[in-house]
Amino acid sequence: MTRPICFFSDYGYTDDFVGTCRAVIARVAPDVRVIDVTHGLPERDVLAGAVVLRNTLPYMPDKAVILAVVDPGVGGPRRPVALRSAGDRLFVGPDNGLLMQAVDADGGAVEARALTNDELWLSPLSATFHGRDIFAPVAARLATGLTLETVGAVADPEALDRIDVPEPQRHRDGLTAIAVLVDRFGNVALNLRARDLEKAKLTGAVELVTGGERYLARVARTFASVRPSDIVVLIDSYGQASVAVNAGSAAGVLGLDAGDEVRLRRRS
Amino acid sequence: MTRPICFFSDYGYTDDFVGTCRAVIARVAPDVRVIDVTHGLPERDVLAGAVVLRNTLPYMPDKAVILAVVDPGVGGPRRPVALRSAGDRLFVGPDNGLLMQAVDADGGAVEARALTNDELWLSPLSATFHGRDIFAPVAARLATGLTLETVGAVADPEALDRIDVPEPQRHRDGLTAIAVLVDRFGNVALNLRARDLEKAKLTGAVELVTGGERYLARVARTFASVRPSDIVVLIDSYGQASVAVNAGSAAGVLGLDAGDEVRLRRRS
Amino acid sequence: MTRPICFFSDYGYTDDFVGTCRAVIARVAPDVRVIDVTHGLPERDVLAGAVVLRNTLPYMPDKAVILAVVDPGVGGPRRPVALRSAGDRLFVGPDNGLLMQAVDADGGAVEARALTNDELWLSPLSATFHGRDIFAPVAARLATGLTLETVGAVADPEALDRIDVPEPQRHRDGLTAIAVLVDRFGNVALNLRARDLEKAKLTGAVELVTGGERYLARVARTFASVRPSDIVVLIDSYGQASVAVNAGSAAGVLGLDAGDEVRLRRRS
Repeated sequence: MTRPICFFSDYGYTDDFVGTCRAVIARVAPDVRVIDVTHGLPERDVLAGAVVLRNTLPYMPDKAVILAVVDPGVGGPRRPVALRSAGDRLFVGPDNGLLMQAVDADGGAVEARALTNDELWLSPLSATFHGRDIFAPVAARLATGLTLETVGAVADPEALDRIDVPEPQRHRDGLTAIAVLVDRFGNVALNLRARDLEKAKLTGAVELVTGGERYLARVARTFASVRPSDIVVLIDSYGQASVAVNAGSAAGVLGLDAGDEVRLRRRS
Repeated sequence: MTRPICFFSDYGYTDDFVGTCRAVIARVAPDVRVIDVTHGLPERDVLAGAVVLRNTLPYMPDKAVILAVVDPGVGGPRRPVALRSAGDRLFVGPDNGLLMQAVDADGGAVEARALTNDELWLSPLSATFHGRDIFAPVAARLATGLTLETVGAVADPEALDRIDVPEPQRHRDGLTAIAVLVDRFGNVALNLRARDLEKAKLTGAVELVTGGERYLARVARTFASVRPSDIVVLIDSYGQASVAVNAGSAAGVLGLDAGDEVRLRRRS
Repeated sequence: MTRPICFFSDYGYTDDFVGTCRAVIARVAPDVRVIDVTHGLPERDVLAGAVVLRNTLPYMPDKAVILAVVDPGVGGPRRPVALRSAGDRLFVGPDNGLLMQAVDADGGAVEARALTNDELWLSPLSATFHGRDIFAPVAARLATGLTLETVGAVADPEALDRIDVPEPQRHRDGLTAIAVLVDRFGNVALNLRARDLEKAKLTGAVELVTGGERYLARVARTFASVRPSDIVVLIDSYGQASVAVNAGSAAGVLGLDAGDEVRLRRRS
């Protein structure tokens, strides 16, 4: 039995990075299905990558190999690793926090290995493209049934690097949140979930403050709940509170980028 | 027998939207081939999407499932639907006009269903990502052989939403056309076909007027018919009259975006 | 036995070009694996395409069909061709220099054919989209086992168009190089390899001059060898000397585009 490979990266689509990894996988595992989940993760943004992996994990096939590369420290001391989750998915990528939110959402790690068996790597090993030379060939081998213990030395799952979404700040009249992801349509996902809005009693008409400007918005269920060009705060399809504009770009209207602060205030 | 899925959307490549739909399809139908035709359809532009679907339909495999999502009304009253064409292709998407030009080009609809059988959907259903929660899993089931009658209530094909390319305006000395699609190379497809140019006697040297500026152009067979940087009006590979610049971008040179008007005049 | 198809182009991801070619391949060869290596090759830049094909060739599966389209002369006199390399890979694309660096890296051409057998093409043939109408269907047939001699008239491999990376200029105190490729991260590959740097005694601290400005840089093994925001000249994963900035964009910092000159000077 083979496992499908779900491939995530910040490699983008302009260069050959993704395609060369696909070719390496095809050489090792010509019959394995590769699902390109996204290669548009924000460049070098490990937190954003970790959030996307965690968000999308429930939709990935059972027993998938999750191959994920956002790796600004390539060539440095960070270790390449592979893990098995309680949900029996396998995860391959750099030990920089990218994988662990998704692993934890899949029941936690039951086994972890550092990728130290260089017989599975491409040779010569480059200093800057471990996706091609280490991660892709190891993921391909795991997809064809190689056991996890073969890929390298035992690692302690508790010692693996973790990165967390920052907590929102609570105020008397609302919250200060952070923009975590901006999508193609200009929707801006915040570090808030439905229960955060409820606890802070942010419902109906609210005020958003960002970049020194104030905006009126409405907490609602969907884009179609407000008029075109109006601002809505909705719970998006991954359970995140998200700022959106009906038939427009919230990122454009509010001047928001990932990492920016947004203050949400009750209107009274 | 399985059917291949031809997947069109305006989801872009930056986010996980497309890849998560691919993963959902792989869960339901691990052996079905998915052909990503394009996910770069102009955002929320149902007309542009309808034109691309219609243009490319003859090149899609027989018996394909056409999964198409440009869905600015997601979460609102527009219905999700599935249709069978006289050509025995299946179409899955929102009932907003996106599908019908291609369906009509494939002989018209012989059966239509509203997607009301929520047992085929993902649960919980989000308000904003029906591609993942409704369209992808239903398309995957149809690809594996589920009959169309299972997906929901009978719909009247005549009552489905339609959207048409606007007609050009005819003048004594030529035509006023609309830019329908702008491609990566800056070629600008107009709402004109070869017979429109012929009827209006637009051949050889012509004048283009747009944005208050006049440009000399030549009606010719291909880019290579004019000198580098010269403007050509040619019949493109989908039969559309298109403004192009040899070794350059017509959209850039003429300042054209989708939706803009272009006046074509005979030179005399 | 079928061969996988490795598909390279400058078609981009915005339009249906790539996807329509994929659909054409699926019609002809439903069981053939298509590996999209990249469709983000710089528009109409045959040299950049040739370099990417040559760089990535060793990672492509054995016996692959390399389908490559960067074709600014489509519709003009340049011929469509197919070749077999000594390494038993097949190459399909325009005879404009795009293919030959990779063919030569694969042992040279042992057989060449002009694509003159129009029974293998789509009909009607467009003047502007030979990827869809000629290259994709011929590549699909070759992938399913059609012999090369069937695709058209014998061609002389020696007479095929070639394009070479320009040679760097040598100076008393260093080299003048050309920027050949700029990747998504802003890394700038030069027309230099490790031995060029060694011969010119460019090691350790060096000076880069471009656009009238001088920059201090360090010749090192990887990004992580220098501090964040510092400039490094490293040998990239394809053996090319490349200008990079740790955690930044060298193209942005130095204002470099493909084609620009960069002077490298020893510091003394």
